Amino acid sequence: MKDMTNLDAYEVGFDIPAKPGMDAADIQTPALVLDLDALERNVKKMGDYAKAHGMRHRAHGKMHKSVDVLKLQMELGGAAGVCCQKVSEAEVFVRAGIKDVLVSNQVRDPAKIDRLAQLPKHGSEITVCVDDVANVAELSEAAQKHGTELGIFVEIDCGAGRCGVTTTEAVVEIVRAVEAATALSYKGIQAYQGAMQHMDSYADRKAKIDAAVAQVGDAVTALKAEGIATGLVSGGGTGSYYFEANSGLYNELQCGSYAFMDADYGRILDENGERIDAGEWENAFFLLTSVMSHAKADKAICDAGLKAQSVDSGLPFIFGRDDVEYIKCSDEHGVISDPDGALKVGDKLRLVPGHCDPTANVHDWYVGVRNGKVETVWPVSARGKAY
Amino acid sequence: MKDMTNLDAYEVGFDIPAKPGMDAADIQTPALVLDLDALERNVKKMGDYAKAHGMRHRAHGKMHKSVDVLKLQMELGGAAGVCCQKVSEAEVFVRAGIKDVLVSNQVRDPAKIDRLAQLPKHGSEITVCVDDVANVAELSEAAQKHGTELGIFVEIDCGAGRCGVTTTEAVVEIVRAVEAATALSYKGIQAYQGAMQHMDSYADRKAKIDAAVAQVGDAVTALKAEGIATGLVSGGGTGSYYFEANSGLYNELQCGSYAFMDADYGRILDENGERIDAGEWENAFFLLTSVMSHAKADKAICDAGLKAQSVDSGLPFIFGRDDVEYIKCSDEHGVISDPDGALKVGDKLRLVPGHCDPTANVHDWYVGVRNGKVETVWPVSARGKAY
Repeated sequence: MKDMTNLDAYEVGFDIPAKPGMDAADIQTPALVLDLDALERNVKKMGDYAKAHGMRHRAHGKMHKSVDVLKLQMELGGAAGVCCQKVSEAEVFVRAGIKDVLVSNQVRDPAKIDRLAQLPKHGSEITVCVDDVANVAELSEAAQKHGTELGIFVEIDCGAGRCGVTTTEAVVEIVRAVEAATALSYKGIQAYQGAMQHMDSYADRKAKIDAAVAQVGDAVTALKAEGIATGLVSGGGTGSYYFEANSGLYNELQCGSYAFMDADYGRILDENGERIDAGEWENAFFLLTSVMSHAKADKAICDAGLKAQSVDSGLPFIFGRDDVEYIKCSDEHGVISDPDGALKVGDKLRLVPGHCDPTANVHDWYVGVRNGKVETVWPVSARGKAY
Repeated sequence: MKDMTNLDAYEVGFDIPAKPGMDAADIQTPALVLDLDALERNVKKMGDYAKAHGMRHRAHGKMHKSVDVLKLQMELGGAAGVCCQKVSEAEVFVRAGIKDVLVSNQVRDPAKIDRLAQLPKHGSEITVCVDDVANVAELSEAAQKHGTELGIFVEIDCGAGRCGVTTTEAVVEIVRAVEAATALSYKGIQAYQGAMQHMDSYADRKAKIDAAVAQVGDAVTALKAEGIATGLVSGGGTGSYYFEANSGLYNELQCGSYAFMDADYGRILDENGERIDAGEWENAFFLLTSVMSHAKADKAICDAGLKAQSVDSGLPFIFGRDDVEYIKCSDEHGVISDPDGALKVGDKLRLVPGHCDPTANVHDWYVGVRNGKVETVWPVSARGKAY
């Protein structure tokens, strides 16, 4: 890539949607726009919450894939480090100088393990998840080869149904193997319940986390019986962090989406039955789109389709408008129902995408806006880093 | 961006999945893999079909976004040029030396119109679609400003329900305005029926195209009555091209997905009730993924999730396997049902993504494979070119 810190190398409308100092009205669409005021308020609020509850916050970098957003979370939100899902993402954060990086995922490919084991040479503490005792020897061998040390989280599948062990015996077996291995250091437990984050009902979410906490509690008890200090117990997302923070068991949060918000998270309900985007968190992340055809009186066609967002969690909603609705998405087009003919060609709309993480991943840039002006243009530093 | 023709500037496993000469077994996952033999057979077959039916083929570059795939379609498949959906995509193809480029879409933003009007200076013939007479003056003014000429297709909405006019009167009005305008040249009719391409039944698809052909026929008759030569009548996709080719009305095809195929197109049925991926076209486009966790006996977790593919048209299927099934997709993981425990960590699988276009758009590279070796690594030249 061109040096993404040198914006002079990019052409507005070809490979960058805007440059700092431009009027927000001139941003080329479709483009990701961050409301910097809202973003900063979200980041500060989570930081304050974590601090007040004695929780470490390891911001989830896989959501935004941005060194700049992470730095905001560290400076303004007190985040202690970052987690991410891929070795190539970890490489981006380490090269940017981040000193505490967790790959909250399994790394099994020999070439990826070899790359991971080199990262501590940059002066960063690198931790990775393990859910198979066979992985311990692979990681140990690579770290020895490079003269480094890797931290290990044992991953418990506490309900997400993806990676992670499901029995206390398996947790203990892996921790014992790590303690016996060279160049590895047991650091704690990864216990992120990903499957409940988007359940609408607060009570339903709580029931799932209660089960997760019980499961993690069993593992902690078993480790204590072995004389092993638990270390970090890490997890929690935007739909659950208050449960983990009050569990008496977790001591590290891994929230990500709270900073941006999206349509799918926005509709889950808090303890009082209110949508979480109606008070708990602000929409700070928008897909700016332009109306580019209105040949039918009751339908406007906009320029943000499947290549500008992911619709896996539903269609976007149109921020601040209840007279028009985004009703269909194809490769390069969105169809907007416009029964009153309120829109005209050239109008710009702020969409709130269904799912922020995979939507950010199709864009190269975030355009940070304040008071109608483009203030920052930040690269999506780890976009496409899937390896 | 780094110069994507200089592969030396990239690191395997960080920002490129493989380099030419590597064993296919060593490709870093998730990665897009092209079966070069199958791709070439598909490309040649469509080229032969178009030639045998006296049709011009303008390959749809918005599908693959690749200069290299387009060049294959031109050299091996006899394609006459390219169509694409965005000005920034057109810029990529023009800068790569492609001489006949259609933006098969509306361009209304003043900055985009200005960029478009400069493209003919590179020696390429540039055509754009219009569905609003007000757009004619905008395009004319920009072309005059830059001393260029733009070709114009009038777009008819023949059933897709997106852009395009719906009445013969509107077609005639726009063509008259173009003929009267300076620096514009009427080139033909855009009539792509996008909404029927994925209907399973051949008879259902035919009924939709019959209606489209009747509508386009009315417009052609009306233009003839005005003494206006019809020019090109352009449309047709992978689910319909034989209808347009035998319509006696269309003279240009715009097929794209045939070259790669995907799961959603694959399941539509041909005239004999057979899936089109069972004989008409070969799967040439795969998302290579690795199993990276198998902590539960009946489920394997692979490393290709929502950031490596689009699931808007359904989940991928696993090529050549009926004992395992991709059943769930989250940001970085796929859950694979493995009832017999057939898979183990490290196994690589070829997924056939649900929808090729938006899946290609999240990757930077195509890894072309033949006989177990990486033969080519081609950039997804216009990835992220959404403006």
